[in-house]
Amino acid sequence: MRFPAIVAATTAALLLATGASAQTFQKPEDAIKYRRSAMTVMAAHFGVIGAMANGKAPFDAAAAARSADVIALVSHLPFAGFVPGTDKGETRAKPEIWTEQAKFNASRDKMQDALGKLSVAAKTGNLDTMKAAFGPAAQTCKACHDDFRKE
Amino acid sequence: MRFPAIVAATTAALLLATGASAQTFQKPEDAIKYRRSAMTVMAAHFGVIGAMANGKAPFDAAAAARSADVIALVSHLPFAGFVPGTDKGETRAKPEIWTEQAKFNASRDKMQDALGKLSVAAKTGNLDTMKAAFGPAAQTCKACHDDFRKE
Repeated sequence: MRFPAIVAATTAALLLATGASAQTFQKPEDAIKYRRSAMTVMAAHFGVIGAMANGKAPFDAAAAARSADVIALVSHLPFAGFVPGTDKGETRAKPEIWTEQAKFNASRDKMQDALGKLSVAAKTGNLDTMKAAFGPAAQTCKACHDDFRKE
Repeated sequence: MRFPAIVAATTAALLLATGASAQTFQKPEDAIKYRRSAMTVMAAHFGVIGAMANGKAPFDAAAAARSADVIALVSHLPFAGFVPGTDKGETRAKPEIWTEQAKFNASRDKMQDALGKLSVAAKTGNLDTMKAAFGPAAQTCKACHDDFRKE
């Protein structure tokens, strides 16, 4: 009874989540702070799942499902913060985010898709299923950071 | 058709969202960064709704509903970051968070409840309904900041 309801909830939530609008940000640094904050929240929850996937923490199916839900939702938020002109300041954003926008957006879509799948996999309550979805999801994070984030 | 599905989704998501666990954080500063990041995301989306509620931005019912959903979900996250011993460093957290924990938790519950109601109100698509829920929600933010956040 529990899992189908959760999957439906997540799917609906994903369709809704699209981040704050660009007009939200009064100053470029507000946009940078917003997107970095969303990434920090994602990373913390990805760490929760990663520890379980890598055997460094005991598998807690409910906690994994919750974290996967948070990640899947929050993965839709940071992009509103990549306002033009925010490649300076407290950021590691590479200029390619704006000069190779189609490629950046494709990376974003791949990441969101992989995290959506991780969320579904985490809700099966099966560690192996979650692990199978975790690797590809982590790979989409790394690929985008390699291309679009400074060292 | 649309609104009931969204309300159901949000309710389910709220029941699931409980933040990262305390074990997530390797260092006190990680916990502080996590909770501050979640607060930043909430504040940005609260600003989206506030601008509409205060007549500073045109009312966009879909955007308001999306932001209210994000706020309601993320409002459950920061509290895992209030790990004992994290009242020092890059934080304005007052020691009362830990010495008056019952009061702090009551403030948290009031805030989450008010933001859940804001989320439901925002989904009616009616600006006045949203405004009526916005004021009390903003009041819960302010009350907790007054009591538990340094200037």
